[in-house]
Amino acid sequence: MDKIWKGRIQKNTDRLVEEYTNSLDLDKKLYLYDIMGSMAYLGGLRSIGIVDRVTSDKILDGLEKVKYYIETHSVSGYEDIHSLVENKLIEYAGPEAKKIHTGRSRNDQVVVDERMYAKDASYTLVTNLVKLQKSLVDLAQKEKDCIIAAYTHLQIAQPVLAAHYLLSFFEKFSRDIEGFSNCFNASDSLPLGAAACTGSGFALDRELMASLLKFSKQDPNSMDTVSNRDFILDIIYCCSKTMLHLSQISEDFVVYSSHEFSLIEIDEAFCTGSSIMPQKKNPDLLELTRARSAVVAGNLTQALMLLKGLPSTYNRDLQEDKEILFSAVERTCSSIAVFTRLLENIKFKPLGERIKGTFIQATDVADYLVKKGASFRDSHNIVGKLVGHCIQNNIDLKELSLKELKEFSPYFDKYYYDSIDIGNCIDSKKVDCGTSRKSVLKNLARAQEKLEGWKDEAEKLKEKIPQYEKLKRELNL
Amino acid sequence: MDKIWKGRIQKNTDRLVEEYTNSLDLDKKLYLYDIMGSMAYLGGLRSIGIVDRVTSDKILDGLEKVKYYIETHSVSGYEDIHSLVENKLIEYAGPEAKKIHTGRSRNDQVVVDERMYAKDASYTLVTNLVKLQKSLVDLAQKEKDCIIAAYTHLQIAQPVLAAHYLLSFFEKFSRDIEGFSNCFNASDSLPLGAAACTGSGFALDRELMASLLKFSKQDPNSMDTVSNRDFILDIIYCCSKTMLHLSQISEDFVVYSSHEFSLIEIDEAFCTGSSIMPQKKNPDLLELTRARSAVVAGNLTQALMLLKGLPSTYNRDLQEDKEILFSAVERTCSSIAVFTRLLENIKFKPLGERIKGTFIQATDVADYLVKKGASFRDSHNIVGKLVGHCIQNNIDLKELSLKELKEFSPYFDKYYYDSIDIGNCIDSKKVDCGTSRKSVLKNLARAQEKLEGWKDEAEKLKEKIPQYEKLKRELNL
Amino acid sequence: MDKIWKGRIQKNTDRLVEEYTNSLDLDKKLYLYDIMGSMAYLGGLRSIGIVDRVTSDKILDGLEKVKYYIETHSVSGYEDIHSLVENKLIEYAGPEAKKIHTGRSRNDQVVVDERMYAKDASYTLVTNLVKLQKSLVDLAQKEKDCIIAAYTHLQIAQPVLAAHYLLSFFEKFSRDIEGFSNCFNASDSLPLGAAACTGSGFALDRELMASLLKFSKQDPNSMDTVSNRDFILDIIYCCSKTMLHLSQISEDFVVYSSHEFSLIEIDEAFCTGSSIMPQKKNPDLLELTRARSAVVAGNLTQALMLLKGLPSTYNRDLQEDKEILFSAVERTCSSIAVFTRLLENIKFKPLGERIKGTFIQATDVADYLVKKGASFRDSHNIVGKLVGHCIQNNIDLKELSLKELKEFSPYFDKYYYDSIDIGNCIDSKKVDCGTSRKSVLKNLARAQEKLEGWKDEAEKLKEKIPQYEKLKRELNL
Amino acid sequence: MDKIWKGRIQKNTDRLVEEYTNSLDLDKKLYLYDIMGSMAYLGGLRSIGIVDRVTSDKILDGLEKVKYYIETHSVSGYEDIHSLVENKLIEYAGPEAKKIHTGRSRNDQVVVDERMYAKDASYTLVTNLVKLQKSLVDLAQKEKDCIIAAYTHLQIAQPVLAAHYLLSFFEKFSRDIEGFSNCFNASDSLPLGAAACTGSGFALDRELMASLLKFSKQDPNSMDTVSNRDFILDIIYCCSKTMLHLSQISEDFVVYSSHEFSLIEIDEAFCTGSSIMPQKKNPDLLELTRARSAVVAGNLTQALMLLKGLPSTYNRDLQEDKEILFSAVERTCSSIAVFTRLLENIKFKPLGERIKGTFIQATDVADYLVKKGASFRDSHNIVGKLVGHCIQNNIDLKELSLKELKEFSPYFDKYYYDSIDIGNCIDSKKVDCGTSRKSVLKNLARAQEKLEGWKDEAEKLKEKIPQYEKLKRELNL
Repeated sequence: MDKIWKGRIQKNTDRLVEEYTNSLDLDKKLYLYDIMGSMAYLGGLRSIGIVDRVTSDKILDGLEKVKYYIETHSVSGYEDIHSLVENKLIEYAGPEAKKIHTGRSRNDQVVVDERMYAKDASYTLVTNLVKLQKSLVDLAQKEKDCIIAAYTHLQIAQPVLAAHYLLSFFEKFSRDIEGFSNCFNASDSLPLGAAACTGSGFALDRELMASLLKFSKQDPNSMDTVSNRDFILDIIYCCSKTMLHLSQISEDFVVYSSHEFSLIEIDEAFCTGSSIMPQKKNPDLLELTRARSAVVAGNLTQALMLLKGLPSTYNRDLQEDKEILFSAVERTCSSIAVFTRLLENIKFKPLGERIKGTFIQATDVADYLVKKGASFRDSHNIVGKLVGHCIQNNIDLKELSLKELKEFSPYFDKYYYDSIDIGNCIDSKKVDCGTSRKSVLKNLARAQEKLEGWKDEAEKLKEKIPQYEKLKRELNL
Repeated sequence: MDKIWKGRIQKNTDRLVEEYTNSLDLDKKLYLYDIMGSMAYLGGLRSIGIVDRVTSDKILDGLEKVKYYIETHSVSGYEDIHSLVENKLIEYAGPEAKKIHTGRSRNDQVVVDERMYAKDASYTLVTNLVKLQKSLVDLAQKEKDCIIAAYTHLQIAQPVLAAHYLLSFFEKFSRDIEGFSNCFNASDSLPLGAAACTGSGFALDRELMASLLKFSKQDPNSMDTVSNRDFILDIIYCCSKTMLHLSQISEDFVVYSSHEFSLIEIDEAFCTGSSIMPQKKNPDLLELTRARSAVVAGNLTQALMLLKGLPSTYNRDLQEDKEILFSAVERTCSSIAVFTRLLENIKFKPLGERIKGTFIQATDVADYLVKKGASFRDSHNIVGKLVGHCIQNNIDLKELSLKELKEFSPYFDKYYYDSIDIGNCIDSKKVDCGTSRKSVLKNLARAQEKLEGWKDEAEKLKEKIPQYEKLKRELNL
Repeated sequence: MDKIWKGRIQKNTDRLVEEYTNSLDLDKKLYLYDIMGSMAYLGGLRSIGIVDRVTSDKILDGLEKVKYYIETHSVSGYEDIHSLVENKLIEYAGPEAKKIHTGRSRNDQVVVDERMYAKDASYTLVTNLVKLQKSLVDLAQKEKDCIIAAYTHLQIAQPVLAAHYLLSFFEKFSRDIEGFSNCFNASDSLPLGAAACTGSGFALDRELMASLLKFSKQDPNSMDTVSNRDFILDIIYCCSKTMLHLSQISEDFVVYSSHEFSLIEIDEAFCTGSSIMPQKKNPDLLELTRARSAVVAGNLTQALMLLKGLPSTYNRDLQEDKEILFSAVERTCSSIAVFTRLLENIKFKPLGERIKGTFIQATDVADYLVKKGASFRDSHNIVGKLVGHCIQNNIDLKELSLKELKEFSPYFDKYYYDSIDIGNCIDSKKVDCGTSRKSVLKNLARAQEKLEGWKDEAEKLKEKIPQYEKLKRELNL
Repeated sequence: MDKIWKGRIQKNTDRLVEEYTNSLDLDKKLYLYDIMGSMAYLGGLRSIGIVDRVTSDKILDGLEKVKYYIETHSVSGYEDIHSLVENKLIEYAGPEAKKIHTGRSRNDQVVVDERMYAKDASYTLVTNLVKLQKSLVDLAQKEKDCIIAAYTHLQIAQPVLAAHYLLSFFEKFSRDIEGFSNCFNASDSLPLGAAACTGSGFALDRELMASLLKFSKQDPNSMDTVSNRDFILDIIYCCSKTMLHLSQISEDFVVYSSHEFSLIEIDEAFCTGSSIMPQKKNPDLLELTRARSAVVAGNLTQALMLLKGLPSTYNRDLQEDKEILFSAVERTCSSIAVFTRLLENIKFKPLGERIKGTFIQATDVADYLVKKGASFRDSHNIVGKLVGHCIQNNIDLKELSLKELKEFSPYFDKYYYDSIDIGNCIDSKKVDCGTSRKSVLKNLARAQEKLEGWKDEAEKLKEKIPQYEKLKRELNL
């Protein structure tokens, strides 16, 4: 296929070079954005008289055919998606279509495509995360009475409601939703008009083009436009954070579903077996999610390293941003989706009798002594010794007699036994961010409210995403 | 020094372990935040009667002494800054001070310190970036008539105003300012009350503590609080992006200040020489900035990898976040500062006669043909061949006769010579994001306006940063 | 398709999970290794009587059919390549084939596949690098008289032979060859026998299997075998280094091929044009290579982060190593190949008259003064001032009169003019690692010799790579 | 302090720039290498008559004084360690010392320093790893009869000897030792003679200098010498791998020392407590090691990104390599050291009765059926169903009657009960890489032998490290 720049460079491109530089396999994912971008650009050219109505209609019609062609063929043989669309368009709409690139460069064109992709991806990630959160909240609701252990350093720390534990991830994913919502806005600006780097030589109506493509604002500096990949970094970074959070809940679940911890039970349909060990039921899904967090974080390294020390405006290095971006977005989307299903298929198992010998109530005993009048540091010390005593004598906290207790501190009285009741331990964490049943119920309600808010937010984003059919209608007015 | 947890663990810590786990050297940078955090917490304890007014005054006084001690001594011998402050406090204020840790853990305490640091750092980065932008705008103003070459692929592309080039970085740093402003907000939430992980066993007045420490909101889930390092990732990520932008302008300047490009001249005071080559004047500063962008981006990798796959709530791994954070923040701050000074000490050199043989006006010739009636793709082709012809015959665009031109296209007429006038080339980029003198002047004015906006924004952030003296006064009311 | 572990887990895998955990699309690249691994394993089972000769022949025949099937079909519907091979085998060879997995696990099986891939990849990379080096040496030979500038800090430093410059990359790629040769050896050890993690329950003849698969040694610890991915890290790391070196020569060439530097000319067939700027001839190939160095380095981050903090033996996280490995290897291979061709298509342009005003001979003047008796630090100082004087008066070094020179130092005499002759500057770098014509010729010869050595080395590696047909014959004996 | 390049650049360096570019704080760690490098270089200059014996003695004496000065003072006020040494030397030894930089540049000088550091560091890392391995072997010896569970996917897999588990890390660290030994060799080449980039203008006796500094070979290309940082990348990469291995054993130990797993007991002296929870005994050491693996891996990203796309020879970016290198080396050294001590202070706890309900012998049952005549895939299936049956009926494998068993397969007979004996399970893994007691004892002996080999290897490396006093004596001959 003829290169669109064959005037200056007469020789044919070396075959190896052609293969090495070809990006069609990847950027064909952007075809619809490329076509819609061209449609809006056509509107821009029409408004300043570069193309007339008749030509415009012919080109619009040609673009529809190009769209159909791509959707029904396995494409190859072009340098990139832009060359494919332009060449096919000329084939379908005739030589008048050669006007479509007037005052436009692939340098701003690819940014249009990427911005549209970025908005779409951010929207999708927001809606996927909202679904994930719904699963979390539903599970928290279901398990709202189940008491498990909270761990620090993977050592038993204090009793906690499973619901409180689950809501801690609700917070993490809420921040992620805000992050992707910011990503959407960072991408919501029209690049067209920047051309190769110093601005188009034609006085395009950028407001019109922005409105057609539903961009809320317009890029103010052409040299920045063609070099700026911040909006792409932002998405990859937000994907890294979401995957990080998923890696953490995955790690928890891997540990919690071990025979030894037995805090959760994962449905068989979400586990796999071993090719050699007949008894195995492995949480592969969790491990793969954890692993993919590494891949996505490495995508961020790739993007940053790619951009480091690049000279101004467009350099071909920028072509590589797409594969990195797609990898991060696709992996994050599928990980969220599969985790959403998983959450619908796990059960928590209450600690129950297993608290014995864990000294999980030790902090509550110290708090109890404080309420009796001891200073916290002293109480902490006393209870530390008490625990040492129990370990040495292989007894549990509830087996201590008041007399024994008194030897450690005169503050001890019969209310000690209340302080080590696991339900009391839970409810004593009265602060609004704590695990008391009251606080958790309040936070569950608050989470549900927030979910509704996110859904509205998502609807608003959706309205800022252009639709092919609607765009066509607008151009046909 | 005695460990604060010596009740349970009787043996002395192994010396090697002590060295390996000690964090005081690093986290002593947080001392003032730790002290202020303790002051606010004291206010919280006082409000629920855990300490009375007398004790509170004694402890406040003790904290002032601890502050003075740290500021005037080289500290060592404690596990971390929290242990140092608590131990010294008990020494200065007596055993009553042992109450200060009631219902608080180092797990939430360190987050308070880090949030306060993060707010401070974000604010400083915003103000530093505003100064950098002022330098950019001043330089753009000074060079507003200087025409240089814009490059794509480091090959001469089109003529551009130096001011337009400089404003492209104004856009990049504007996004960075917004980023750090978001970081500020992400850190602006009170962690206290979370305690070890399930919430404090005391019904602390969190609103009071938030108000004392000027936090705009309060963390809603204790398990999230002690594990959440998103706000730290966010700052390191934003530092990476700012350093990336600095690496890019550094690369430009390294190339532009080469003997061969000679587009800028850097003042001697900003260059260094060689130990062996007497003629050298090297732009080391730019190279170091470029290099440090790699260090900061690597800090982000460190932070992400640190957090990947960590189980819930606090794990000691989190201790390492501080060194990484400080590295990123400090390097970014100093790089911005030094670049601000540098911008005050560079001059641009206009292209002038050097345009000869560069064919820098080729796009303008193609645009001219379009305006005459050719389609863009055909014009592009024609001009491509024209350039090939010039190269073969070693002549410049302006040396072509009308007759010669006509052989390439019938559209050529005498206005061709206007189209290759460098000033006209500049002014033909009329779009508001283009390099025409009119657009650039408008964008310069817009930048100056934006600068004023950022300054106001910075003032607002400053008001949300607590001051020691003011906090003391509030607690003395 | 039935899972091979359907005994224990009765429920069907959730469809989303199936998609998320499926690895066939990627690991089918390993099919031939998987089949050959199974053939050798079959040999192992036969030698201890688990299968008899008749069954073995049936299975061997079945494996041949599986091979043909995979090579002629687009495969899907299986969990991974191992399941595909086993299922298809049973289909082709009958129920006896169910014995093939006796005492083997996918945990050691996948390592066999990866080790064989790693050996193949290392060998290919070595041979590709040898070809690249040949191009370098040929070009150096061709340009052995061409004098260009050497740069430090991208500022003109000293005159240098283009050949000397090119040979500096010969050294870098030599280290890379050694690196990949080490990678080959690190992969050259038999994993079979490790089974799931504690070793096979059958006393397999590992020596036989190693000999069949041409592994030089055998893994000594089964738990290490199934978790060890060091050999994969090693290859990705070596790919990163090679790409780093390519990114550096790419950066040089991008700068050198700029209009301003004009030190090299790249053949048109290796450049691309612009969609909008008709005059452009862009070195995209170099930029893409530079960019891909970032992708490969990020692959290393991915692999390290993937493995960080994984518990012992096999975890499903390890599945992700393959995509990362393939990305690094394939990108590095194609980058080397395309660069090899490129080197055959560039020309260097001698500095010639362009040395004027560069003061490129300044160090030689200082050396000359040292030879006259001055101390180096003083000479350096004198020449520094001399250069300053020339710049102020806009004259070149060769325009200075002896009288003027004497004002700077009494050591100056008429031999000064010899010292600034560019040919003399070159030849004065007599040290064997320097740019004198004599040293460079010697080093060229040495490089050619080394090339022959590498070729022999590559042959030796090749002999340690098993071939399907040969393996079949051995098993048919 | 006067810059050594003050001839050309007359203006004083801007104060901010001075701070920003100063590297003394970091590179002063290299002082002894810098001084010894200068001593050897002096020998080189003496051998070609640039300095005479008297001057040489004076300078040697001066260098001794500089050494003493640095060792007894807190140094500052110089650009870098090279400037400090040169300036102080001139102060102590008089103007003749200005000859010391003849034909040498900081560009090759810093590489000498770094190569010497790299050799020292590699040697130290090898010896530290050998000590770590000794601890591993000693512990394996002590625990050679202790049976624990091996895990895949953190689910119980098969019984294993603790010694076998520990020896799996012996293998990993053995590869690390080989890695660092290669690093030593990669650094064992003399850079001197390269000067700024094109080679020294003086015909230095490089063999003499190499011999004085105990370098086994000499760099062959000056341009490669001043840009090559591969040897530094290699060390950082090897540090990353070692830390990775430590992160993995740390993760194991964190999990194994949990209350739930209770597979190991860590001595109190190696744990820390909580500031709020009195019962806690946390394995902080392990978590910090795990965390530091992220920091070191990030150091590798930093180094790679630093070098990506740098133009040829020396660029100031290279200055930043030192901080990154030191961070990686120091962290790895201390982590190995502390882990060595830790291993001396842990105990394994045998599984014992805890195997009940784990079905840990399932693979052995399948193997048993194979030996009875079933195909492995069928056996696997049968045992899978058997396990399902046990779970449903809440019984253990050993509680199954022969009658029940027969219902699953006719192959079952009374030897079934032997097959599930945990000792038999261990011993059935007869392959030399398996966990049978015989194989493990053999591998223990082999490990001890290997240890002796490493010690000899380390001795050989040590001999290639130059010593100050010895070097002085040689120069005084």
